[in-house]
Amino acid sequence: MKKEKMEQANYLQQLKEWIDLKREFDIIDLFTRLHPADIADLIDNLKEGEKILLFALLDVEKASDVILELSDVSREQILEDISDKKLTEIVEEMESDDAADLIADLPEEQAKTVLEGIEPEDSEEVRQLLKYEEDSAGGIMQSELVCVQEGATIRDALQAVIKESESDEIENIYNVFVVNGENRLIGTIPLQRLITAKPNTPVNKCVDEDIPSVNVDVDQEEVARMFEKYDLVSIAVVDDYNRLLGRITVDDVVDVIEEETSEDIYRIAGLDEDDSVFNKPIQSVRKRLPWLYFNLLTAFASVFVIGFFEDTIKMMVVLAVFMPVVAGLGGNAGSQTLVLIVRGMALGELTFENSKKALYKEILVGIANGVCVGIVIGIIAYLWKGIPILGIVLCLAMVLNIFVGTLMGTLIPLGLKWFKMDPALGSHIFVTAFTDAFGFLSFLGLATIFLRLLT
Amino acid sequence: MKKEKMEQANYLQQLKEWIDLKREFDIIDLFTRLHPADIADLIDNLKEGEKILLFALLDVEKASDVILELSDVSREQILEDISDKKLTEIVEEMESDDAADLIADLPEEQAKTVLEGIEPEDSEEVRQLLKYEEDSAGGIMQSELVCVQEGATIRDALQAVIKESESDEIENIYNVFVVNGENRLIGTIPLQRLITAKPNTPVNKCVDEDIPSVNVDVDQEEVARMFEKYDLVSIAVVDDYNRLLGRITVDDVVDVIEEETSEDIYRIAGLDEDDSVFNKPIQSVRKRLPWLYFNLLTAFASVFVIGFFEDTIKMMVVLAVFMPVVAGLGGNAGSQTLVLIVRGMALGELTFENSKKALYKEILVGIANGVCVGIVIGIIAYLWKGIPILGIVLCLAMVLNIFVGTLMGTLIPLGLKWFKMDPALGSHIFVTAFTDAFGFLSFLGLATIFLRLLT
Repeated sequence: MKKEKMEQANYLQQLKEWIDLKREFDIIDLFTRLHPADIADLIDNLKEGEKILLFALLDVEKASDVILELSDVSREQILEDISDKKLTEIVEEMESDDAADLIADLPEEQAKTVLEGIEPEDSEEVRQLLKYEEDSAGGIMQSELVCVQEGATIRDALQAVIKESESDEIENIYNVFVVNGENRLIGTIPLQRLITAKPNTPVNKCVDEDIPSVNVDVDQEEVARMFEKYDLVSIAVVDDYNRLLGRITVDDVVDVIEEETSEDIYRIAGLDEDDSVFNKPIQSVRKRLPWLYFNLLTAFASVFVIGFFEDTIKMMVVLAVFMPVVAGLGGNAGSQTLVLIVRGMALGELTFENSKKALYKEILVGIANGVCVGIVIGIIAYLWKGIPILGIVLCLAMVLNIFVGTLMGTLIPLGLKWFKMDPALGSHIFVTAFTDAFGFLSFLGLATIFLRLLT
Repeated sequence: MKKEKMEQANYLQQLKEWIDLKREFDIIDLFTRLHPADIADLIDNLKEGEKILLFALLDVEKASDVILELSDVSREQILEDISDKKLTEIVEEMESDDAADLIADLPEEQAKTVLEGIEPEDSEEVRQLLKYEEDSAGGIMQSELVCVQEGATIRDALQAVIKESESDEIENIYNVFVVNGENRLIGTIPLQRLITAKPNTPVNKCVDEDIPSVNVDVDQEEVARMFEKYDLVSIAVVDDYNRLLGRITVDDVVDVIEEETSEDIYRIAGLDEDDSVFNKPIQSVRKRLPWLYFNLLTAFASVFVIGFFEDTIKMMVVLAVFMPVVAGLGGNAGSQTLVLIVRGMALGELTFENSKKALYKEILVGIANGVCVGIVIGIIAYLWKGIPILGIVLCLAMVLNIFVGTLMGTLIPLGLKWFKMDPALGSHIFVTAFTDAFGFLSFLGLATIFLRLLT
């Protein structure tokens, strides 16, 4: 692997030299030897002008593979520059799902031109796919598949695979689907089964019962769960009447998994899912600033709480010194729980049904962690500052706030889900706003009570 | 999907009734109709005693599939109770990679007994696999594969697939590997190619040049990246001399991706990767408490900083009211960047080579966001409290701290990686410790300077 990375760096160096020397034939020659994904990697690492230049050197077929592998930033830059004619040719080379995804991202005018430019049959397929929700099974499926009628034999199925492979319309075939006269799905036969079965066997007898199908409206995250659960490489997509509409292959599901987890992590932290390390700074500012302003709004809860206790702080300034510790640790205990809950939901382990069990558990964990941390900080503060009241208040407030943090880390994502929102959405900001405000309230409130009792 | 979930809930209800009525034959009958993954789901939702009871009803072959799909908690409970004899039979049914994973998790004594119990040939394979690092290509590969010698024909390859399928040793065949006389890998042929090629064609001519192989020592995260990049369903694993050792299939890679992303998210938040929603509370406390204590330690940076400015706070208590806002927003700006950087690294988009570009960008974003938030909070505080100095200090401190947060969110994961540590490891705690301490320092420090200038 190290070797491969080195090679990739060498290629990049070489490529830059050739660009400077305008040795286009050498570049074209290199590109014919490389995998489209590797070419995309190289292009991603060049300057905007160079990207456009190199992309123009690719033949249509390679260009259609490479453009799918480019980073979003590079793809946008190239698409801005490309002629409608070239783009139409490139799209025509793509499988239907990739074509639909690309067209969905184009400006309306350009999308229309491309759709009108490609062959009527392809265009119809793509239009159909564009109707489905982007995040549904329909949004990630492709129309290209191999299917045979029930009553056909294994020999027929093998012939179908050969025919479709030769047509060059469909790239990776893993299964043959069996349908009846009304195009309703009977079942799925893996290629391995086609090879091992006797050629005269009816296909109906070779259907693999363990391979499920999925409805076109199912969320892509559910589809990914099914691939994971049943160890699939490809699944049939059907409508409400079980009619075969398309198929989803595992390579697209891998992308879905990466996309969905990125989305979850980003949303917890208050990031937009389109944000990326290499976006333009202004784009990132625009995406992150709203969350920071939202955070500023929630921070005012803390401001009001502390403002309420100004007199107490004036009496005992050392309270101001320790109050961020209570808030901070409550926040971190909350984050720990939050991440666990959000991830548990994403992986389908945690549902509303078993959430009560999780809540009970987190309550116990919250109390135990609170007591363990509270006692330590209480003793340290007492020994250090020599003020018993500080130690006691700090200990009690810490127990309360770590407990509350753990509770909120569980309840906030569950609550968001209950309201049909994404349980990850900005949840970290909610949790820390809560633990901050409650941390200050419990610490300063307890201190006020104790100080009054003593004076 | 909804339907399926309902069905699953119904099965669970039914199952619980049958357990109470001791209707074991009905349970066995239901289990023969269900997919192992669905049986595992049902068992996961039962009480410990019931889990063991139901698992005992499964025949060895089904049991070996089900045990792999169980949650970690259920698997542990069942393994504690199972006899060595039954466990040996179950392991014998497994593919080598699953057997190795299971044995690796067993207590030493039990692992030894099982290894001695299974067939010598299987045992040798498993022992070999156990030698590789758990997180490497070797740790996730299986020994079962179909390969033919160079010079063989497509017909020979087809025969090899049929023979291996019949032997029942290997489950999912997607490719046939071609090796030379010294077992060195020549290339990979997808089943689709076997079907479409003429039977007399030499296999060497049908090798798919686009399918790479991977060295046995490569990290599993790198392996996942390769599957993603090259859209693979299976890859050959080779040693340093390019000798074929095993294969990795995409279903295992999907698990790796889920595992690695969970690990990343957990580590950012300061969670142990083994922590789970349904662990026993005591286990979760043990896993999370060290991180909280570590957080307590880092929180003392803030305590010292604020302690240093006690006099300033005494002079102007309203500073205590606003200081958490500066710290909190800096922390959140840091988290946003941190998550983006860690995820960018995990997805292989961000490397040391292009990290300078990312750093420059984040510096710009940090300054811009800082200015935008700083001005707003400065104006609000001034208008509200009527103290110009508060507005100015708050604005300046906020600009500084959001900038520093963004910078640290970039530098801390890069630094951890530089020291060959996981860039995600506890990084959120580092970042917030830094933004807390620096937030208090800049805010209270600036306030002290301004107050001195005025008096």
